[in-house]
Amino acid sequence: MADQTYGITEIVGTSGESVHQAIRNGISRASQTVRNLDWFEVSTIRGHIENGEVAHFQVQMKVGFRIESPEG
Amino acid sequence: MADQTYGITEIVGTSGESVHQAIRNGISRASQTVRNLDWFEVSTIRGHIENGEVAHFQVQMKVGFRIESPEG
Amino acid sequence: MADQTYGITEIVGTSGESVHQAIRNGISRASQTVRNLDWFEVSTIRGHIENGEVAHFQVQMKVGFRIESPEG
Amino acid sequence: MADQTYGITEIVGTSGESVHQAIRNGISRASQTVRNLDWFEVSTIRGHIENGEVAHFQVQMKVGFRIESPEG
Amino acid sequence: MADQTYGITEIVGTSGESVHQAIRNGISRASQTVRNLDWFEVSTIRGHIENGEVAHFQVQMKVGFRIESPEG
Amino acid sequence: MADQTYGITEIVGTSGESVHQAIRNGISRASQTVRNLDWFEVSTIRGHIENGEVAHFQVQMKVGFRIESPEG
Amino acid sequence: MADQTYGITEIVGTSGESVHQAIRNGISRASQTVRNLDWFEVSTIRGHIENGEVAHFQVQMKVGFRIESPEG
Amino acid sequence: MADQTYGITEIVGTSGESVHQAIRNGISRASQTVRNLDWFEVSTIRGHIENGEVAHFQVQMKVGFRIESPEG
Amino acid sequence: MADQTYGITEIVGTSGESVHQAIRNGISRASQTVRNLDWFEVSTIRGHIENGEVAHFQVQMKVGFRIESPEG
Amino acid sequence: MADQTYGITEIVGTSGESVHQAIRNGISRASQTVRNLDWFEVSTIRGHIENGEVAHFQVQMKVGFRIESPEG
Amino acid sequence: MADQTYGITEIVGTSGESVHQAIRNGISRASQTVRNLDWFEVSTIRGHIENGEVAHFQVQMKVGFRIESPEG
Amino acid sequence: MADQTYGITEIVGTSGESVHQAIRNGISRASQTVRNLDWFEVSTIRGHIENGEVAHFQVQMKVGFRIESPEG
Repeated sequence: MADQTYGITEIVGTSGESVHQAIRNGISRASQTVRNLDWFEVSTIRGHIENGEVAHFQVQMKVGFRIESPEG
Repeated sequence: MADQTYGITEIVGTSGESVHQAIRNGISRASQTVRNLDWFEVSTIRGHIENGEVAHFQVQMKVGFRIESPEG
Repeated sequence: MADQTYGITEIVGTSGESVHQAIRNGISRASQTVRNLDWFEVSTIRGHIENGEVAHFQVQMKVGFRIESPEG
Repeated sequence: MADQTYGITEIVGTSGESVHQAIRNGISRASQTVRNLDWFEVSTIRGHIENGEVAHFQVQMKVGFRIESPEG
Repeated sequence: MADQTYGITEIVGTSGESVHQAIRNGISRASQTVRNLDWFEVSTIRGHIENGEVAHFQVQMKVGFRIESPEG
Repeated sequence: MADQTYGITEIVGTSGESVHQAIRNGISRASQTVRNLDWFEVSTIRGHIENGEVAHFQVQMKVGFRIESPEG
Repeated sequence: MADQTYGITEIVGTSGESVHQAIRNGISRASQTVRNLDWFEVSTIRGHIENGEVAHFQVQMKVGFRIESPEG
Repeated sequence: MADQTYGITEIVGTSGESVHQAIRNGISRASQTVRNLDWFEVSTIRGHIENGEVAHFQVQMKVGFRIESPEG
Repeated sequence: MADQTYGITEIVGTSGESVHQAIRNGISRASQTVRNLDWFEVSTIRGHIENGEVAHFQVQMKVGFRIESPEG
Repeated sequence: MADQTYGITEIVGTSGESVHQAIRNGISRASQTVRNLDWFEVSTIRGHIENGEVAHFQVQMKVGFRIESPEG
Repeated sequence: MADQTYGITEIVGTSGESVHQAIRNGISRASQTVRNLDWFEVSTIRGHIENGEVAHFQVQMKVGFRIESPEG
Repeated sequence: MADQTYGITEIVGTSGESVHQAIRNGISRASQTVRNLDWFEVSTIRGHIENGEVAHFQVQMKVGFRIESPEG
């Protein structure tokens, strides 16, 4: 069974600046706890509004990673 | 019945620059006519093309707002 | 039958910078082979991760164009 | 911020004759209360049955319109 | 338990003429075997092409009906 | 054009108790500002969590109403 | 071919009280005509409004059942 | 009204071997009770796991059939 | 490998009259450039509004065709 | 990078009583292993049937939580 | 603009044997007319039934390919 | 609160042979790190193409498991 298996974790990255920065922030944070991140796919783009202006972009995404070896 | 009710309105914000600016423009315009905007969720990202280049980003989104008091 | 017909082609534009630049790059490239591009609609936003950081944004989109005259 | 913003309203048009007449009836009625209607998109096509025959076609659709100027 | 229960059956109506006639044909045929038809909802609109022209419109739809009394 | 047209408005009803009470609260509040409410359809069921317990159920729904007469 | 096959039937259960009672009523009614009901899955939650209050919850669901032996 | 009407029934076929055998098993079983089966479309592929291995593939699918003549 | 392969192309047919005429117009135009058209499936029904009336129905659809022989 | 990141975990809560109790049970159990739960969103409502009555409501939901600090 | 652009074409592969062989057949045929095929994604799995047995599996899929250089 | 709660994890199983082997490989690998696996549901079937032939089938799926006892 040498065929690769991938895990998928779902996160929400946020940013006060832009959609792509919210993605970068979320991926950057995820890479601190999960190794071998390989790809992401955006599920939804939402955000919080304060005083009639966008306060935060919130990007929900699935993040795929290569699973290396069994952990008991 | 002290439980909060929210209304949702749907708009399309546009920008010649970027997806996030189209969102900001739409929210900013909506806040001129609807009070207590609270969140948004993007439905679709489309755009218009002129002479082989992106002329406008058009972001359709639902915008949620707190309803304050009954109006007859 | 003077009613206009449109064709739709699907592409994936990429960029190391942002979501909107990935859209611009894809449209710009498509305009080199298809005439009369008129609109686009984003299907999915994905990306590739290297060393725990976003390496490329990959935006899949449908691109509509006006069909001019029959070609045998 | 000269970028255009659009509003979207959702309606159900009905007709005893056909799907396209239900759309026409709904748009025609909406244009009596909303200015600058620009496009529509059908969400669902349903209908009511009486005595084993279609009594009404009911077409739910989103209708987009240009927003002109702020209203307090 | 005087609350009404409804059954739903799914059919494909066809017509060489139009979408709404395909719906009418399907409902008319269904009413010959199922009593108390109440509403329909279109799932998909497809069709068959012959010699470069539409030969048949095929409308898949769910049809709801009132259930009257238990049958053993 | 005696065919009825319906409007659809979207709201989020909330309740600390249950899903069906959140629906009731939202409909009850909507009926204070919109006449002739006729049906609703749930879009999403979400909620807020505080201290590891459900604090509020939030039910997003579309609410249909009969449109009576033109308003200028 | 000893592998089990399941049938699926779709119904709408209703209740003036709650979502879960509408489900229970529908399942209870379906069990009077179909044997070996095994599971259900909710498709949509809708309802009817009268005088500004929820009159009936209508829960559309698919109901799975084990098929026992061929019937000619 | 010589236009053909089709009925659609939904089933779950199962197999301990493969996805395509689960489809074959379900179709084969359905053909024992429904005549004139014409096409199928897979809705979902699920399965049951026992002792860390796939025990059964369960393929939910819609099966279309030609309706011949009215039955009272 | 005598098994048939089909290609799918996506188009938008338009008509000032009806939904089914928009489908016919699109298929008719597509048949001028693609041989062996076999079926279509409607994706979305949209339209353009001018002066408060439907100006054009725009039907987006996928069109399937039989692929005959390799082209280098 | 002071922008907050959220994790999402998916669970199925169950209850013999009601949909909202199944949600409460699932959230309550999840809070025993995950800190800082913030919101949930229901994906599907299913259930198990025994002897023609609903035995368990099974509510699948995504649960969001605030991520505090990196863990190696 | 050294960023790679990908094209997507949609096909239906068929096989009398299995789902995976239908995918292989379709990809193999597509590679005769399109260069640099890179990935595929299954849209729907359908099939044709003859005499109560599966005659053909029909797998609709999107196929992505790298675009090399502009063609006028 | 003796009601069972289930967790759901998402993985991608791969195989150079077939769709069902990709599922088996993924489940087999997941069972090395998660106990009490109970069911799976396929989300998407994708694959990688090399030299015009399918190199790997990649099956993304959700895997459900019974949660036993609280872990601090």
